[in-house]
Amino acid sequence: MALSARNRLAGTIRSVETDGLMAEVEIELDGGQVVTAVITAGSVDRLGVEEGAELDAVIKATEVMVEN
Amino acid sequence: MALSARNRLAGTIRSVETDGLMAEVEIELDGGQVVTAVITAGSVDRLGVEEGAELDAVIKATEVMVEN
Amino acid sequence: MALSARNRLAGTIRSVETDGLMAEVEIELDGGQVVTAVITAGSVDRLGVEEGAELDAVIKATEVMVEN
Amino acid sequence: MALSARNRLAGTIRSVETDGLMAEVEIELDGGQVVTAVITAGSVDRLGVEEGAELDAVIKATEVMVEN
Amino acid sequence: MALSARNRLAGTIRSVETDGLMAEVEIELDGGQVVTAVITAGSVDRLGVEEGAELDAVIKATEVMVEN
Amino acid sequence: MALSARNRLAGTIRSVETDGLMAEVEIELDGGQVVTAVITAGSVDRLGVEEGAELDAVIKATEVMVEN
Repeated sequence: MALSARNRLAGTIRSVETDGLMAEVEIELDGGQVVTAVITAGSVDRLGVEEGAELDAVIKATEVMVEN
Repeated sequence: MALSARNRLAGTIRSVETDGLMAEVEIELDGGQVVTAVITAGSVDRLGVEEGAELDAVIKATEVMVEN
Repeated sequence: MALSARNRLAGTIRSVETDGLMAEVEIELDGGQVVTAVITAGSVDRLGVEEGAELDAVIKATEVMVEN
Repeated sequence: MALSARNRLAGTIRSVETDGLMAEVEIELDGGQVVTAVITAGSVDRLGVEEGAELDAVIKATEVMVEN
Repeated sequence: MALSARNRLAGTIRSVETDGLMAEVEIELDGGQVVTAVITAGSVDRLGVEEGAELDAVIKATEVMVEN
Repeated sequence: MALSARNRLAGTIRSVETDGLMAEVEIELDGGQVVTAVITAGSVDRLGVEEGAELDAVIKATEVMVEN
Protein backbone atom coordinates (compact mmCIF):
# COMPACT_ATOMS: atom_id res chain seq x y z
CA MET A 1 0.00 0.00 0.00
CA ALA A 2 1.32 3.45 -0.96
CA LEU A 3 -0.15 6.79 0.15
CA SER A 4 -0.09 9.92 -2.03
CA ALA A 5 1.06 12.15 0.88
CA ARG A 6 4.59 13.18 -0.08
CA ASN A 7 6.07 13.60 3.39
CA ARG A 8 6.95 10.72 5.67
CA LEU A 9 9.42 11.55 8.42
CA ALA A 10 10.78 8.69 10.55
CA GLY A 11 11.02 9.23 14.29
CA THR A 12 10.35 8.06 17.82
CA ILE A 13 7.46 9.09 20.05
CA ARG A 14 8.65 11.34 22.84
CA SER A 15 5.29 11.98 24.48
CA VAL A 16 1.58 11.32 24.05
CA GLU A 17 -1.02 13.42 25.84
CA THR A 18 -4.71 12.63 25.50
CA ASP A 19 -7.56 14.85 26.66
CA GLY A 20 -11.14 14.09 25.71
CA LEU A 21 -11.47 13.61 21.94
CA MET A 22 -8.03 14.93 20.99
CA ALA A 23 -4.41 13.91 21.53
CA GLU A 24 -1.07 15.62 21.10
CA VAL A 25 1.85 13.44 20.02
CA GLU A 26 5.47 14.64 20.02
CA ILE A 27 7.77 12.80 17.62
CA GLU A 28 11.55 13.18 17.72
CA LEU A 29 12.75 12.78 14.16
CA ASP A 30 15.86 10.85 13.27
CA GLY A 31 18.22 13.85 13.18
CA GLY A 32 16.86 15.38 16.37
CA GLN A 33 14.17 17.85 15.31
CA VAL A 34 10.71 17.48 16.90
CA VAL A 35 7.30 17.32 15.20
CA THR A 36 4.00 17.74 17.07
CA ALA A 37 0.86 16.06 15.71
CA VAL A 38 -2.70 16.72 16.88
CA ILE A 39 -4.80 13.66 16.10
CA THR A 40 -7.93 12.12 17.59
CA ALA A 41 -7.76 10.16 20.82
CA GLY A 42 -9.54 7.41 18.87
CA SER A 43 -6.54 7.09 16.53
CA VAL A 44 -4.11 6.97 19.46
CA ASP A 45 -6.07 3.99 20.79
CA ARG A 46 -6.52 2.28 17.44
CA LEU A 47 -2.81 2.53 16.52
CA GLY A 48 -1.53 1.87 20.04
CA VAL A 49 0.62 5.03 19.92
CA GLU A 50 2.88 5.07 22.97
CA GLU A 51 6.06 6.70 24.22
CA GLY A 52 9.26 5.25 22.82
CA ALA A 53 7.70 3.58 19.78
CA GLU A 54 9.03 4.24 16.30
CA LEU A 55 6.63 5.71 13.77
CA ASP A 56 6.39 8.12 10.85
CA ALA A 57 4.96 11.62 10.82
CA VAL A 58 2.98 11.90 7.56
CA ILE A 59 2.10 15.27 5.99
CA LYS A 60 0.41 16.18 2.67
CA ALA A 61 2.67 18.54 0.67
CA THR A 62 -0.05 21.18 0.28
CA GLU A 63 -0.03 21.60 4.09
CA VAL A 64 3.65 22.60 4.31
CA MET A 65 4.67 26.28 4.35
CA VAL A 66 8.18 27.69 4.22
CA GLU A 67 9.72 30.60 6.11
CA ASN A 68 13.02 32.30 5.47
CA MET B 1 6.96 37.79 15.89
CA ALA B 2 5.84 34.31 16.91
CA LEU B 3 3.52 32.03 14.91
CA SER B 4 1.12 29.55 16.54
CA ALA B 5 2.10 26.73 14.13
CA ARG B 6 3.87 24.18 16.32
CA ASN B 7 6.23 22.70 13.76
CA ARG B 8 9.27 24.48 12.39
CA LEU B 9 11.88 22.22 10.82
CA ALA B 10 15.20 23.77 9.77
CA GLY B 11 16.67 22.75 6.43
CA THR B 12 18.19 23.69 3.10
CA ILE B 13 16.37 23.98 -0.22
CA ARG B 14 17.31 21.12 -2.52
CA SER B 15 15.11 22.05 -5.45
CA VAL B 16 12.42 24.50 -6.52
CA GLU B 17 10.12 23.78 -9.45
CA THR B 18 7.54 26.32 -10.57
CA ASP B 19 4.73 25.70 -13.05
CA GLY B 20 1.98 28.24 -13.58
CA LEU B 21 0.42 29.25 -10.23
CA MET B 22 2.01 26.52 -8.12
CA ALA B 23 5.50 25.55 -7.01
CA GLU B 24 7.04 22.47 -5.44
CA VAL B 25 9.91 23.01 -3.01
CA GLU B 26 12.08 20.18 -1.66
CA ILE B 27 13.78 20.90 1.67
CA GLU B 28 16.52 18.69 3.10
CA LEU B 29 16.16 18.84 6.86
CA ASP B 30 19.13 19.05 9.16
CA GLY B 31 19.41 15.31 9.86
CA GLY B 32 18.92 14.31 6.23
CA GLN B 33 15.20 13.64 5.79
CA VAL B 34 13.40 15.49 2.99
CA VAL B 35 10.18 17.53 3.14
CA THR B 36 8.21 18.60 0.05
CA ALA B 37 6.08 21.75 0.17
CA VAL B 38 3.51 22.81 -2.42
CA ILE B 39 3.11 26.58 -2.22
CA THR B 40 2.08 29.29 -4.69
CA ALA B 41 4.53 30.52 -7.31
CA GLY B 42 3.73 33.98 -5.95
CA SER B 43 5.21 33.04 -2.57
CA VAL B 44 8.33 31.59 -4.22
CA ASP B 45 8.87 34.98 -5.88
CA ARG B 46 7.98 37.06 -2.83
CA LEU B 47 10.31 35.10 -0.50
CA GLY B 48 13.06 34.64 -3.07
CA VAL B 49 13.09 30.86 -2.45
CA GLU B 50 16.08 29.35 -4.29
CA GLU B 51 18.21 26.23 -4.30
CA GLY B 52 20.81 26.06 -1.55
CA ALA B 53 19.18 28.62 0.74
CA GLU B 54 18.45 27.79 4.38
CA LEU B 55 14.84 28.01 5.49
CA ASP B 56 12.27 26.40 7.77
CA ALA B 57 9.42 24.10 6.81
CA VAL B 58 6.43 25.22 8.90
CA ILE B 59 3.42 22.94 9.58
CA LYS B 60 0.31 23.37 11.77
CA ALA B 61 0.05 20.46 14.24
CA THR B 62 -3.51 19.59 13.16
CA GLU B 63 -2.13 18.76 9.67
CA VAL B 64 0.27 16.06 10.88
CA MET B 65 -0.76 12.39 10.82
CA VAL B 66 1.16 9.44 12.23
CA GLU B 67 1.68 5.96 10.82
CA ASN B 68 3.08 2.89 12.53
CA MET C 1 1.15 -0.25 8.78
CA ALA C 2 -1.75 1.83 10.10
CA LEU C 3 -2.33 5.54 9.46
CA SER C 4 -3.98 7.87 11.99
CA ALA C 5 -6.23 9.48 9.33
CA ARG C 6 -9.73 8.35 10.29
CA ASN C 7 -11.32 8.33 6.86
CA ARG C 8 -10.64 5.74 4.21
CA LEU C 9 -13.25 5.45 1.49
CA ALA C 10 -12.94 2.61 -1.01
CA GLY C 11 -13.55 3.37 -4.66
CA THR C 12 -12.51 3.17 -8.29
CA ILE C 13 -10.68 5.84 -10.27
CA ARG C 14 -13.00 7.43 -12.82
CA SER C 15 -10.54 9.96 -14.23
CA VAL C 16 -7.04 11.32 -13.77
CA GLU C 17 -6.01 14.69 -15.19
CA THR C 18 -2.47 15.96 -14.81
CA ASP C 19 -1.27 19.47 -15.59
CA GLY C 20 2.20 20.64 -14.62
CA LEU C 21 2.85 19.94 -10.92
CA MET C 22 -0.71 19.09 -9.95
CA ALA C 23 -3.25 16.38 -10.73
CA GLU C 24 -6.97 15.97 -10.21
CA VAL C 25 -8.25 12.48 -9.50
CA GLU C 26 -11.95 11.55 -9.48
CA ILE C 27 -12.84 8.49 -7.42
CA GLU C 28 -16.24 6.80 -7.61
CA LEU C 29 -16.93 5.41 -4.16
CA ASP C 30 -18.51 2.03 -3.63
CA GLY C 31 -22.09 3.27 -3.25
CA GLY C 32 -21.86 5.66 -6.19
CA GLN C 33 -20.86 9.04 -4.73
CA VAL C 34 -17.80 10.77 -6.23
CA VAL C 35 -14.75 12.23 -4.44
CA THR C 36 -12.26 14.57 -6.14
CA ALA C 37 -8.66 14.68 -4.88
CA VAL C 38 -6.04 17.27 -5.83
CA ILE C 39 -2.61 15.71 -5.35
CA THR C 40 0.80 16.28 -6.93
CA ALA C 41 1.59 14.92 -10.37
CA GLY C 42 4.62 13.34 -8.70
CA SER C 43 2.34 11.19 -6.53
CA VAL C 44 0.25 10.15 -9.53
CA ASP C 45 3.44 8.87 -11.16
CA ARG C 46 4.85 7.26 -8.01
CA LEU C 47 1.61 5.39 -7.20
CA GLY C 48 0.75 4.58 -10.81
CA VAL C 49 -2.75 6.07 -10.38
CA GLU C 50 -4.79 5.27 -13.49
CA GLU C 51 -8.38 5.10 -14.66
CA GLY C 52 -10.27 2.02 -13.55
CA ALA C 53 -7.96 1.08 -10.69
CA GLU C 54 -9.32 0.49 -7.19
CA LEU C 55 -7.97 2.70 -4.43
CA ASP C 56 -8.94 4.48 -1.22
CA ALA C 57 -9.58 8.19 -0.72
CA VAL C 58 -7.95 9.07 2.62
CA ILE C 59 -8.94 12.16 4.63
CA LYS C 60 -7.87 13.43 8.09
CA ALA C 61 -10.97 13.95 10.28
CA THR C 62 -10.06 17.57 11.08
CA GLU C 63 -10.44 18.38 7.34
CA VAL C 64 -14.08 17.29 7.14
CA MET C 65 -16.89 19.83 7.50
CA VAL C 66 -20.62 19.13 7.68
CA GLU C 67 -23.53 20.97 6.11
CA ASN C 68 -27.23 20.59 6.82
CA MET D 1 -25.37 29.69 -2.64
CA ALA D 2 -22.60 27.46 -4.03
CA LEU D 3 -19.36 26.54 -2.24
CA SER D 4 -16.08 25.92 -4.07
CA ALA D 5 -15.32 22.76 -2.05
CA ARG D 6 -15.57 19.94 -4.62
CA ASN D 7 -16.66 17.13 -2.32
CA ARG D 8 -20.14 16.84 -0.85
CA LEU D 9 -21.07 13.37 0.35
CA ALA D 10 -24.66 12.78 1.46
CA GLY D 11 -25.24 10.74 4.58
CA THR D 12 -26.92 10.31 7.94
CA ILE D 13 -25.41 11.12 11.36
CA ARG D 14 -24.63 7.95 13.25
CA SER D 15 -23.13 9.55 16.36
CA VAL D 16 -22.12 12.92 17.81
CA GLU D 17 -19.68 13.17 20.70
CA THR D 18 -18.82 16.54 22.20
CA ASP D 19 -16.03 17.21 24.69
CA GLY D 20 -15.03 20.73 25.61
CA LEU D 21 -14.37 22.80 22.47
CA MET D 22 -14.34 19.94 20.00
CA ALA D 23 -16.81 17.39 18.64
CA GLU D 24 -16.54 14.19 16.65
CA VAL D 25 -19.34 13.41 14.22
CA GLU D 26 -19.72 10.05 12.46
CA ILE D 27 -21.65 10.15 9.19
CA GLU D 28 -22.85 7.01 7.42
CA LEU D 29 -22.77 7.77 3.71
CA ASP D 30 -25.48 6.66 1.35
CA GLY D 31 -23.74 3.47 0.18
CA GLY D 32 -22.68 2.44 3.69
CA GLN D 33 -19.15 3.82 4.16
CA VAL D 34 -18.51 5.99 7.23
CA VAL D 35 -16.86 9.43 7.44
CA THR D 36 -15.66 10.98 10.70
CA ALA D 37 -15.53 14.77 11.04
CA VAL D 38 -13.83 16.72 13.83
CA ILE D 39 -15.51 20.12 14.10
CA THR D 40 -16.01 22.63 16.91
CA ALA D 41 -18.63 22.06 19.58
CA GLY D 42 -19.83 25.55 18.67
CA SER D 43 -20.72 24.37 15.16
CA VAL D 44 -22.52 21.31 16.51
CA ASP D 45 -24.71 23.66 18.55
CA ARG D 46 -25.19 26.23 15.80
CA LEU D 47 -26.20 23.63 13.18
CA GLY D 48 -28.19 21.46 15.58
CA VAL D 49 -26.24 18.37 14.51
CA GLU D 50 -27.89 15.30 16.04
CA GLU D 51 -28.03 11.55 15.60
CA GLY D 52 -30.22 10.35 12.77
CA ALA D 53 -30.30 13.62 10.85
CA GLU D 54 -29.36 13.76 7.18
CA LEU D 55 -26.46 16.00 6.22
CA ASP D 56 -23.51 16.30 3.87
CA ALA D 57 -19.84 15.77 4.64
CA VAL D 58 -17.98 18.56 2.80
CA ILE D 59 -14.26 18.33 1.95
CA LYS D 60 -11.94 20.61 -0.07
CA ALA D 61 -10.27 18.60 -2.86
CA THR D 62 -6.75 19.64 -1.77
CA GLU D 63 -7.36 17.79 1.54
CA VAL D 64 -7.98 14.40 -0.07
CA MET D 65 -5.17 11.87 -0.43
CA VAL D 66 -5.27 8.54 -2.25
CA GLU D 67 -3.81 5.17 -1.28
CA ASN D 68 -3.45 2.07 -3.40
CA MET E 1 -28.27 25.15 4.43
CA ALA E 2 -25.62 25.87 7.06
CA LEU E 3 -21.96 24.85 6.89
CA SER E 4 -19.89 23.95 9.96
CA ALA E 5 -16.91 26.07 8.82
CA ARG E 6 -16.75 28.90 11.35
CA ASN E 7 -15.26 31.59 9.15
CA ARG E 8 -17.17 33.41 6.43
CA LEU E 9 -15.67 36.71 5.36
CA ALA E 10 -17.67 38.89 2.96
CA GLY E 11 -15.82 40.57 0.12
CA THR E 12 -15.49 41.38 -3.56
CA ILE E 13 -13.36 39.54 -6.11
CA ARG E 14 -10.40 41.67 -7.14
CA SER E 15 -8.77 39.18 -9.51
CA VAL E 16 -9.08 35.62 -10.80
CA GLU E 17 -6.15 33.86 -12.44
CA THR E 18 -6.55 30.36 -13.84
CA ASP E 19 -3.73 28.10 -15.01
CA GLY E 20 -4.32 24.46 -15.85
CA LEU E 21 -6.14 22.72 -12.97
CA MET E 22 -5.71 25.46 -10.39
CA ALA E 23 -6.90 29.04 -9.90
CA GLU E 24 -5.91 31.88 -7.61
CA VAL E 25 -8.67 34.23 -6.46
CA GLU E 26 -8.01 37.52 -4.65
CA ILE E 27 -10.88 38.76 -2.50
CA GLU E 28 -10.97 42.26 -1.03
CA LEU E 29 -12.80 42.00 2.26
CA ASP E 30 -15.30 44.58 3.42
CA GLY E 31 -12.86 46.59 5.56
CA GLY E 32 -10.11 46.55 2.94
CA GLN E 33 -7.90 43.55 3.81
CA VAL E 34 -7.21 41.01 1.06
CA VAL E 35 -7.58 37.21 1.14
CA THR E 36 -6.09 34.90 -1.51
CA ALA E 37 -7.74 31.53 -2.19
CA VAL E 38 -6.26 28.69 -4.24
CA ILE E 39 -9.12 26.58 -5.57
CA THR E 40 -9.58 24.33 -8.59
CA ALA E 41 -10.21 25.82 -12.02
CA GLY E 42 -13.23 23.51 -12.11
CA SER E 43 -14.77 25.37 -9.16
CA VAL E 44 -14.09 28.76 -10.76
CA ASP E 45 -16.09 27.59 -13.78
CA ARG E 46 -18.86 25.92 -11.80
CA LEU E 47 -19.42 28.97 -9.54
CA GLY E 48 -18.86 31.54 -12.28
CA VAL E 49 -16.29 33.36 -10.14
CA GLU E 50 -15.39 36.64 -11.86
CA GLU E 51 -13.82 39.98 -11.07
CA GLY E 52 -16.07 42.44 -9.29
CA ALA E 53 -18.54 39.87 -7.97
CA GLU E 54 -19.40 39.71 -4.28
CA LEU E 55 -18.70 36.46 -2.47
CA ASP E 56 -17.54 35.01 0.85
CA ALA E 57 -14.16 33.55 1.71
CA VAL E 58 -14.87 30.45 3.82
CA ILE E 59 -12.26 28.89 6.14
CA LYS E 60 -12.45 26.02 8.66
CA ALA E 61 -11.32 27.23 12.10
CA THR E 62 -8.70 24.47 12.45
CA GLU E 63 -6.89 25.98 9.41
CA VAL E 64 -6.34 29.40 11.01
CA MET E 65 -3.07 30.23 12.78
CA VAL E 66 -2.25 33.35 14.77
CA GLU E 67 0.94 35.40 14.89
CA ASN E 68 1.87 38.14 17.32
CA MET F 1 11.56 36.42 8.43
CA ALA F 2 8.86 35.93 5.81
CA LEU F 3 6.30 33.11 5.73
CA SER F 4 4.93 31.62 2.49
CA ALA F 5 1.32 31.67 3.80
CA ARG F 6 -0.42 34.26 1.61
CA ASN F 7 -3.04 35.46 4.06
CA ARG F 8 -2.30 37.67 7.05
CA LEU F 9 -5.27 39.53 8.46
CA ALA F 10 -4.66 42.12 11.19
CA GLY F 11 -7.00 42.18 14.13
CA THR F 12 -7.59 42.25 17.87
CA ILE F 13 -8.33 39.28 20.11
CA ARG F 14 -11.93 39.35 21.28
CA SER F 15 -11.90 36.12 23.27
CA VAL F 16 -9.71 33.15 24.13
CA GLU F 17 -11.18 29.92 25.45
CA THR F 18 -8.94 27.02 26.42
CA ASP F 19 -10.09 23.49 27.21
CA GLY F 20 -7.63 20.65 27.62
CA LEU F 21 -5.26 20.50 24.63
CA MET F 22 -7.16 22.88 22.38
CA ALA F 23 -8.08 26.57 22.36
CA GLU F 24 -10.51 28.70 20.40
CA VAL F 25 -9.47 32.27 19.65
CA GLU F 26 -11.82 34.91 18.22
CA ILE F 27 -10.14 37.74 16.34
CA GLU F 28 -11.97 40.90 15.31
CA LEU F 29 -10.40 42.04 12.07
CA ASP F 30 -9.69 45.67 11.33
CA GLY F 31 -12.91 46.33 9.37
CA GLY F 32 -15.12 44.50 11.86
CA GLN F 33 -15.45 40.93 10.56
CA VAL F 34 -14.57 38.10 12.97
CA VAL F 35 -12.24 35.13 12.44
CA THR F 36 -12.18 32.07 14.72
CA ALA F 37 -8.97 30.04 15.06
CA VAL F 38 -8.64 26.62 16.69
CA ILE F 39 -5.04 26.20 17.85
CA THR F 40 -3.37 24.20 20.59
CA ALA F 41 -3.50 25.37 24.20
CA GLY F 42 0.28 25.05 24.09
CA SER F 43 0.50 27.78 21.46
CA VAL F 44 -1.82 30.05 23.42
CA ASP F 45 0.59 29.76 26.36
CA ARG F 46 3.76 30.08 24.27
CA LEU F 47 2.55 33.21 22.43
CA GLY F 48 0.81 34.74 25.43
CA VAL F 49 -2.42 35.14 23.45
CA GLU F 50 -4.87 37.20 25.51
CA GLU F 51 -8.00 39.27 25.10
CA GLY F 52 -7.46 42.75 23.70
CA ALA F 53 -4.05 42.07 22.16
CA GLU F 54 -3.37 42.85 18.51
CA LEU F 55 -2.30 39.97 16.31
CA ASP F 56 -2.62 38.54 12.80
CA ALA F 57 -4.75 35.62 11.65
CA VAL F 58 -2.56 33.65 9.21
CA ILE F 59 -4.03 31.25 6.62
CA LYS F 60 -2.44 29.24 3.78
CA ALA F 61 -4.15 30.06 0.47
CA THR F 62 -4.92 26.40 -0.30
CA GLU F 63 -7.15 26.33 2.83
CA VAL F 64 -9.48 29.10 1.65
CA MET F 65 -12.75 28.27 -0.13
CA VAL F 66 -15.18 30.69 -1.74
CA GLU F 67 -18.96 30.74 -1.73
CA ASN F 68 -21.31 32.82 -3.86
